[in-house]
Amino acid sequence: MATVNHQFRLAARPVGMPKPSDWSYTEEPVGEPGEGQFLAQVEYISLDPAMRGWMNDARSYVPPVGLGEVMRAGAVGRVISSRHPGFAAGDHVSGLFGVQEYAMSDGGGVYPIDVNLAPPEVHLGTLGMPGFTAYFGLLDVGRLAEGDTVVVSAAAGAVGTVVGQIARIKGCRVVGIAGGPDKCRFIVDELGFDAAIDYKSEDVHARLRELCPDRINVYFDNVGGDILDAALTRLARGARIVICGAVSQYNNAGPMKGPSNYMALLVDRASMTGFLVFDFASRYGEAAREMGAWLRAGTLKSREDIVDGFEQFPDALLKLFRGENTGKLVLKVAGD
Amino acid sequence: MATVNHQFRLAARPVGMPKPSDWSYTEEPVGEPGEGQFLAQVEYISLDPAMRGWMNDARSYVPPVGLGEVMRAGAVGRVISSRHPGFAAGDHVSGLFGVQEYAMSDGGGVYPIDVNLAPPEVHLGTLGMPGFTAYFGLLDVGRLAEGDTVVVSAAAGAVGTVVGQIARIKGCRVVGIAGGPDKCRFIVDELGFDAAIDYKSEDVHARLRELCPDRINVYFDNVGGDILDAALTRLARGARIVICGAVSQYNNAGPMKGPSNYMALLVDRASMTGFLVFDFASRYGEAAREMGAWLRAGTLKSREDIVDGFEQFPDALLKLFRGENTGKLVLKVAGD
Repeated sequence: MATVNHQFRLAARPVGMPKPSDWSYTEEPVGEPGEGQFLAQVEYISLDPAMRGWMNDARSYVPPVGLGEVMRAGAVGRVISSRHPGFAAGDHVSGLFGVQEYAMSDGGGVYPIDVNLAPPEVHLGTLGMPGFTAYFGLLDVGRLAEGDTVVVSAAAGAVGTVVGQIARIKGCRVVGIAGGPDKCRFIVDELGFDAAIDYKSEDVHARLRELCPDRINVYFDNVGGDILDAALTRLARGARIVICGAVSQYNNAGPMKGPSNYMALLVDRASMTGFLVFDFASRYGEAAREMGAWLRAGTLKSREDIVDGFEQFPDALLKLFRGENTGKLVLKVAGD
Repeated sequence: MATVNHQFRLAARPVGMPKPSDWSYTEEPVGEPGEGQFLAQVEYISLDPAMRGWMNDARSYVPPVGLGEVMRAGAVGRVISSRHPGFAAGDHVSGLFGVQEYAMSDGGGVYPIDVNLAPPEVHLGTLGMPGFTAYFGLLDVGRLAEGDTVVVSAAAGAVGTVVGQIARIKGCRVVGIAGGPDKCRFIVDELGFDAAIDYKSEDVHARLRELCPDRINVYFDNVGGDILDAALTRLARGARIVICGAVSQYNNAGPMKGPSNYMALLVDRASMTGFLVFDFASRYGEAAREMGAWLRAGTLKSREDIVDGFEQFPDALLKLFRGENTGKLVLKVAGD
């Protein structure tokens, strides 16, 4: 058994994009679990746009990561020794284990994962927070109805891929907005989206006009900025905008760009609603059962983008903000 | 009976604040009603922030006013001759009669008003569209609940005065944001708001922090811009922002300022919803009955700001955008 645990800790609060010097790479001995604790070996670390917000010293839905602390991150791994009654060595678990190779846990927020249903990394994506975010954001917050026209941004990402597929399963027309021809091909050809808009080479506004002749009933926004503004110009009466994220804005050194066209909410009697998946925690089981069934049936496909090697963390995180990942971006730390 | 009708017509689409040259002042003979028509003498013309939007050549909830057309406006007046089965000479009526002294009508969108309940001009304010806007915006769109903290901007205006008073009647704490000490004194001392913030001399953000220790449950926004951004920083969990208008932005020559802090919707699981009072037309009677009862009981007070003289129209309209009116701004054209 390894005796050294490596970690990435927050060394400085980034201005704009995180730089290598914003991190410190540390090592410390792997401890022994005390009474009520277990030790897990981390296998896959989740890389999420929300992590950028956690690095800022600002009021949010969770406290910021403190300077010198191990960076917060979701992860999956295996219990390797336990003095906790709820977890035994060999168990596959998911939790906020942080950016480190080994995590000591008292079990808070940790839950078992079923690796027979899908490999561990899928439990960080389609069967984890991104999948649940898509599920509850679209169905509950977005109040999806059959026949709706749905538009989703960051459509080739962990949340967007699931949003679009659920909308299709529920009998809706889906247009995805993504960056580059490969992602656009992927969401249409592999995932069954009705159409894709490449925001890097196409005029989003003009393409939305063309692809959404009945306008937009649900716009699921992961990016903010100009794309949110373009979607606002094409809302149907009573449209629902679901605010899930604003990845285009997270690395702004100055203030965020607010949606200049927000008065479309009035003209179109529309709403813009924010949510956090944690508020639906009591219903994760429901989402996992339904999405698990779709995965088995092949109507829902899961895609992971795996970066191999713990020390790749600082650069791997930037892939999210450079728009380089397709599907759920994870860092592989250990495991098969 | 007068034989000449004067009118203000849209001569040019304004850039920024409307200028005198954006209007043409015309006169034409007063006609005789044909079969199914009636002629009304206009007594009071409603001056509304929304009129600024109607002057732009842009998609909205109604078509723009065409160049050369009589400016669109709500008004109240008396029928002076009629060949319409539903209206008789002497009837008091309300409708979109436009900025003119006499209006020929086929009765479309015209309804009788009860001048025994309140004087004609009150039917353009508290018992008219602004009052109904406040009523349905706060109660239905804002889903007001007893004990809520409510904040309203343009609080001394036609809509804001009613929003704040209804919130008080319903057992809520109300903070109004208005410009200048006179308006602030008026909403607190005359209308019973719990507190006022003078945005011209006070730091809105700091004052909201001080006056809303339990944060904001409903923010009723009439102004947009920096005040909307300040309110976004003080939302309670599950807050509702009602988008009624954005008077601070209507005369921008460039794009509107979007709310930079809109990601508070996510952090606070809040919503921002636009609406138009016209969608509640089938329930105006319900609102009029309940508000009429409050007026009679003295728990709801109506305030009108009356500019006398038809030819004052171009300058009177600007009072809205200069923030000079307290209560409902109307132009008196004829009557006692």
